[in-house]
Amino acid sequence: MIQPQSVGAVVAQRAHFTEPLALKSGGTLPEYELVYETYGTLNAARSNAVLVCHALSGSHHVAGYYADEPDNIGWWDNLVGPGKPLDTHRFFVVGVNNLGGCHGSTGPKSANPATGRRWGADFPFVTVEDWVTAQARLADRLGIERFAAVVGGSLGGMQALAWSLHYPKRIGHAIAIAAAPRLTAQNIAFNEVARQAILTDPDFHGGHFYEHGVVPARGLKLARMLGHITYLSDDSMAEKFGRSLRHGRAVYSYDVEFEIESYLRYQGDKFAAHFDANTYLLTTKALDYFDPAFEYGGNLAAAFARATADFLIVSFTTDWRFAPARSREMVNALLHNQRNVSYAEIDCAAGHDSFLLDETHYHAVLRGYFNRMGV
Amino acid sequence: MIQPQSVGAVVAQRAHFTEPLALKSGGTLPEYELVYETYGTLNAARSNAVLVCHALSGSHHVAGYYADEPDNIGWWDNLVGPGKPLDTHRFFVVGVNNLGGCHGSTGPKSANPATGRRWGADFPFVTVEDWVTAQARLADRLGIERFAAVVGGSLGGMQALAWSLHYPKRIGHAIAIAAAPRLTAQNIAFNEVARQAILTDPDFHGGHFYEHGVVPARGLKLARMLGHITYLSDDSMAEKFGRSLRHGRAVYSYDVEFEIESYLRYQGDKFAAHFDANTYLLTTKALDYFDPAFEYGGNLAAAFARATADFLIVSFTTDWRFAPARSREMVNALLHNQRNVSYAEIDCAAGHDSFLLDETHYHAVLRGYFNRMGV
Repeated sequence: MIQPQSVGAVVAQRAHFTEPLALKSGGTLPEYELVYETYGTLNAARSNAVLVCHALSGSHHVAGYYADEPDNIGWWDNLVGPGKPLDTHRFFVVGVNNLGGCHGSTGPKSANPATGRRWGADFPFVTVEDWVTAQARLADRLGIERFAAVVGGSLGGMQALAWSLHYPKRIGHAIAIAAAPRLTAQNIAFNEVARQAILTDPDFHGGHFYEHGVVPARGLKLARMLGHITYLSDDSMAEKFGRSLRHGRAVYSYDVEFEIESYLRYQGDKFAAHFDANTYLLTTKALDYFDPAFEYGGNLAAAFARATADFLIVSFTTDWRFAPARSREMVNALLHNQRNVSYAEIDCAAGHDSFLLDETHYHAVLRGYFNRMGV
Repeated sequence: MIQPQSVGAVVAQRAHFTEPLALKSGGTLPEYELVYETYGTLNAARSNAVLVCHALSGSHHVAGYYADEPDNIGWWDNLVGPGKPLDTHRFFVVGVNNLGGCHGSTGPKSANPATGRRWGADFPFVTVEDWVTAQARLADRLGIERFAAVVGGSLGGMQALAWSLHYPKRIGHAIAIAAAPRLTAQNIAFNEVARQAILTDPDFHGGHFYEHGVVPARGLKLARMLGHITYLSDDSMAEKFGRSLRHGRAVYSYDVEFEIESYLRYQGDKFAAHFDANTYLLTTKALDYFDPAFEYGGNLAAAFARATADFLIVSFTTDWRFAPARSREMVNALLHNQRNVSYAEIDCAAGHDSFLLDETHYHAVLRGYFNRMGV
């Protein structure tokens, strides 16, 4: 067996769109750019394209590295590459930064053409459905009429679901990993605390902090610390950190005492140094709003009636953010519509973040699913 | 059967202590006051006293109301009173505000006798063990050599455990409800996010905000919102709030849209208006530090060897903050020492906050346990 390899050095590309995009929120983006990357080669039949959708803190940089930044590895590099489960010898893989993002696509940091100022908090609300529409336009540009598959974890999985509902003819398989068909009250509650941390940070300046030369780092840091707790499982935190004390005993201080405090502060600081606060707000709202069953009186089976794709749904036993029960809701709704649905519940201790790891059984499921996929 | 009644109008009392209190943190409180309330009558044998210990946001005001504030009902009024599970016809019940608190006992808002300024962030760290020591001194003052029982929920339950370990001869029964023998990494992580919200609030002023005429309301509000999520269960939030939208549909705004957002903001604002930020910080640290097994290499059974009380341990099925498994750890450690331990795992949807409710089976367990208790 040939060892799996990296896709190697990659180059991000840009696509400019001048046709206005009408958004679900009622707003319109007059024009916009999407930044994206591709790996592998589109075959002559244009039938081997796979779209990878990113979650809250992901981007278009799914695999490989940049020649001038060799340590900047794509967020799903363990999954995508030659000989990897999503094998770029067979598939043409597309990653795209979502609208409203902060990694190069048009977002709050971009200039608002109407004012010349950065959009900031005036950037219109974007939804999962809007992202999917923009992705479909990018597919048009790339000459992809139909994706062999759309795949994503967490919020990325919601985009795969939305593809199956809004472009049923343009998608062969929808793969939703560690996802949920809609957020619970508890999910929304965590998002709301994170938003309030940002919105009430005096450095937020109503979302126009760019003009003040500051960033609401305190709020972003708190949001990320809180997020991280929900990405990990109780067990994995216990195993990794437990009650380990930096000084071996209590020193009675608000500086770091327990190692878990150090980890969370580090993650929070790192995130606050590069992520955009307005993007964070927009993305959590997109999560809250997503609810394909809303216009069907909450009936998820009715919502999925228009889907024609085959489905792979994957959940992780210790994921309490989007627990296996949430995936089973989707499976049941799909079975109700006699869709072809495969479901894997992976025994993994790492909680929600499991979808980013190369846990053996998990990757074997994906490898097998992609291997069997006709292109 | 006579209907259970309120203890009626109550009056808080104060006890001043001039003997310095050496604290576990190494600091010393030169003198201090404790505010407390009592209900019922101490019998001639002084054998019917029950100490009620409070959790993070509780106080000495356990039952009844104040004549000039008829709506200010004690936090465990459904449990304590004539004919109630902890029956004040039989028992003499004592509630006390812990040191470092903000409801009347000496704490960060009090004047530091050495400087004449409010203690603020200079108030020494206090631990569960220090609280228990102070409570024992109050018992001395009240002529109580031995409590029939010490009872508490959550952090209050930890105090009951500490009583059984540090004053084994002064306690007949320890009743720990919705408690844990020590926090997990996840528990500490939630506390740390809450602390960082307060510590990084510009209105915190290093803990000396009193002198600036402000309070770190933003930080306190965030801390309380986050806390509330952990007090409720996923299911109870889903049942109470679900995805209910204030306007019946998404309006794309950072104002309240989902009802859960409204609830959390309201709880946060209410709390921030009256609770002291330094007390919040101290109390979360007391929670983090509590670990009776620490000096026994993590061996909880070894830690409990010195306990002689009888125990009642109560947990709630949907409590994910201090899950039933945490109570079972205590039960196993006690059984290992051949202690008399009763354990009730109550099927209740309300999560951690269940210990404050008058759920039928839960109160029946407590009523039965107190009824059988000799005084």
